[in-house]
Amino acid sequence: MPIPDETYKLIFDEIDARQDEFVKVLKEAVAIASVSSDPERRSDCVKMVMWTKKKLESVGATVQVIENGKQKLQDGKTIDLPPILFGVLGNDPNKKTVLVYGHLDVQPAAKEDGWNTNPFELTEVDGKLFGRGSTDDKGPVIAWVHAISVLQKKKVPIPVNLKFVFECMEESGSEGLEEALRHHKDTFLKGVDMTCISDNYWLGKNKPCLTYGLRGICYYFVEISCAKQDLHSGTYGGSIPEAMNDLIWILSQLTEKDGTIKIPKIYDIVAPVTADEKEMYKGIDFCMDEYKKDIEAHGLVKSTKEEILMNRWRFPSLSIHGIEGAFSNSGAKTVIPSKVIGKFSLRIVPNMTPEEVDKLVIDHLNNLWKQRGSPNHFKPIAYHSGNAWLADYKDDNFRAGARAMKRVFGVDPDYTREGGSIPITLAFQDLTGRSVMLLPIGACDDMAHSQNEKLDRSNYIKGTKTLAAYLLELAE
Amino acid sequence: MPIPDETYKLIFDEIDARQDEFVKVLKEAVAIASVSSDPERRSDCVKMVMWTKKKLESVGATVQVIENGKQKLQDGKTIDLPPILFGVLGNDPNKKTVLVYGHLDVQPAAKEDGWNTNPFELTEVDGKLFGRGSTDDKGPVIAWVHAISVLQKKKVPIPVNLKFVFECMEESGSEGLEEALRHHKDTFLKGVDMTCISDNYWLGKNKPCLTYGLRGICYYFVEISCAKQDLHSGTYGGSIPEAMNDLIWILSQLTEKDGTIKIPKIYDIVAPVTADEKEMYKGIDFCMDEYKKDIEAHGLVKSTKEEILMNRWRFPSLSIHGIEGAFSNSGAKTVIPSKVIGKFSLRIVPNMTPEEVDKLVIDHLNNLWKQRGSPNHFKPIAYHSGNAWLADYKDDNFRAGARAMKRVFGVDPDYTREGGSIPITLAFQDLTGRSVMLLPIGACDDMAHSQNEKLDRSNYIKGTKTLAAYLLELAE
Repeated sequence: MPIPDETYKLIFDEIDARQDEFVKVLKEAVAIASVSSDPERRSDCVKMVMWTKKKLESVGATVQVIENGKQKLQDGKTIDLPPILFGVLGNDPNKKTVLVYGHLDVQPAAKEDGWNTNPFELTEVDGKLFGRGSTDDKGPVIAWVHAISVLQKKKVPIPVNLKFVFECMEESGSEGLEEALRHHKDTFLKGVDMTCISDNYWLGKNKPCLTYGLRGICYYFVEISCAKQDLHSGTYGGSIPEAMNDLIWILSQLTEKDGTIKIPKIYDIVAPVTADEKEMYKGIDFCMDEYKKDIEAHGLVKSTKEEILMNRWRFPSLSIHGIEGAFSNSGAKTVIPSKVIGKFSLRIVPNMTPEEVDKLVIDHLNNLWKQRGSPNHFKPIAYHSGNAWLADYKDDNFRAGARAMKRVFGVDPDYTREGGSIPITLAFQDLTGRSVMLLPIGACDDMAHSQNEKLDRSNYIKGTKTLAAYLLELAE
Repeated sequence: MPIPDETYKLIFDEIDARQDEFVKVLKEAVAIASVSSDPERRSDCVKMVMWTKKKLESVGATVQVIENGKQKLQDGKTIDLPPILFGVLGNDPNKKTVLVYGHLDVQPAAKEDGWNTNPFELTEVDGKLFGRGSTDDKGPVIAWVHAISVLQKKKVPIPVNLKFVFECMEESGSEGLEEALRHHKDTFLKGVDMTCISDNYWLGKNKPCLTYGLRGICYYFVEISCAKQDLHSGTYGGSIPEAMNDLIWILSQLTEKDGTIKIPKIYDIVAPVTADEKEMYKGIDFCMDEYKKDIEAHGLVKSTKEEILMNRWRFPSLSIHGIEGAFSNSGAKTVIPSKVIGKFSLRIVPNMTPEEVDKLVIDHLNNLWKQRGSPNHFKPIAYHSGNAWLADYKDDNFRAGARAMKRVFGVDPDYTREGGSIPITLAFQDLTGRSVMLLPIGACDDMAHSQNEKLDRSNYIKGTKTLAAYLLELAE
């Protein structure tokens, strides 16, 4: 039975009334410098995990501390990885179970890097809460606790069971997490009906969105060698077929000027754009000029918003990353590199599978090499790959998220994808076999990973409302 | 009046008789570890300079020690550069004056690098004198002293005046030398009629040669940028024209598969091959198979000896050296590099001038860029250049060298060029305005700069004879 509108109002009013308290709690979290990449901050990471455990327990969750083994440092030493939190709130077999994922660690930050304020002291300026982790991902994690606490205080029954997975190594490759999850597939993860992750950002600054797709990746090496060692270009130049010459030609045969991929049949395995999908792109809040200006690009490969977004989200792209083995320093060196490795990758989308893409790419490289007719040694390598992720943005999970956003923001959210990969998304989908939704709270200008990271106070509060409303919308 | 044959025999017999003594002197020189690139060996460099000064004085030369100022080290400290020796032997206004150049410093060497013997202890194995500097360039420098000493002992008047320039920074870019020479252009260098330099190698192992040409160089950067900073290839891939894509295409438009340069009109400014020159290449002692095997090349761009040698010596070549700003480490990085700098160079030959080549190359790059029509930022840069050097291998200097070789080896030498540059050659030619000849003493397998550097005892002795004979052949 749907929850009456007054209940939502009651909850939203309470959240508004307690917002200063919520900001204070975020300030506590930001003050713990849980930088996962810095071994000297490892005790802060543990502190942050235990602080969060208490917060979860304060709303009645049962929390397991999962020890996560050792981390091998570059200097050969080993230290303990921060533990992972597995929390449970509610165990009613008649209710659905929502799994919530978030992370407690942050990127490094120092005032000297160009911060206007102390990064580990949450500071409000013009309604913006500046501090490392404010938006990535402490704000969203704590918003869950606030949402639950308000529902409890107002005695509104939560219509679902909740499970929590909070880690503290996300900014360092989520070391150990997938293994821990896999290990608990048939125990802790059993019975999860849907997953909600708040660890990405709105496409713009003004309109909320739900994210239903991520591209996968296929990364390739092309190794070409022409001699046993680097040669002097004066002494040997003009006598041997140079490996760089071959490699540059091969790499020049991968894309058109506008980035269109020249690998035969590659577009045949891309899911066709549906009319429905096309329609949806029209309303998306995205300004091409602003996008271009933000990165100071000199041009874009397409002239409409729809084309640019589709190119980033739902079509494959190919980027040449660089060359290993050639001269790469500043200045001049007169070398004929003997062995060079060109590196490029394709971002892949449904319905492409890494296996199919590998075959098409390697076949293309082999055909090019045959066409080249060079006596040099050639080795194409499929280095690594990861699947694309695509959710059904019309399922119950997304529907609840969308209705919650409509209640809070007064508009239907945009449905977005992202061009990159968030491997944990796929892991949750694979291990639970159920819907995963990305529900961003922060805006595109929050500067996650950068100097002056912030979360707007209004988004922190509206995000908390959204999460509470999402839970209520899941009532059957 | 030519010197009678008996005089040559007298001299050669004396050199043969004293060969063990000459080897002993070379052993002394090799024992001084005059590694110019190692500041801690600077006192050894000075020791080596002073040792050589004594040797020159022992044959009656007047030697000036030219202080060479300071060297700035990478750590910011400064140390004294080793002094340069300017020597004079003979001052007869009726005689021609020959300038002899050589260097006293050596490349670094350590037993652990893979030497079979102590690199700083000259060790004879099967007629090969192993030791750092044996062939590069202590053996040839000392051979001059022996040649003069034998002529004096046998009371054979030297038909020319001699001047010596011996430096101890050649392996470290000859720091200070050109400036010192320029400073003495109208004093010490005045009246020099020809220069002889023994600091290169035979083309093969069996037949002596005289070297009359070096290629010059024109080095280019192509800078392309597409954004203000490196971008994530997942998030941005497919939306902007990528700088790497543009650069790879530009670089792919520089040469054909076989290395033929695609820059319009570039071959129009190359001196045509004369019938005489063509004829000369036929007899040159050069084995393509051995050349290919030595560097373990998988192929050569031409199928005849003449073509390969001409491609290395008297035609321009273009090599792509690498790219700055792209990913160049091992492993995988999913980056769209924002600013990349492609680096390539042309080896140039007569009659190409750097000015003409710069114009053709930059025009070509600009035309390609226009054709590409990319909105990215593009900057072609002519980074540095050096002229080619070509001597008249039929002049008096070369004629004397060739006759000397014929006397010692029983065959006419090959006339060779080298594909690289030896900047000091051009400096001597420019500052004296007269003939410069490269007269190599060591063979192609002497492993200069590498482990197990050696000079064959027979070549050391025959080289000494050649230098003595060269002086005698200069009699008018």
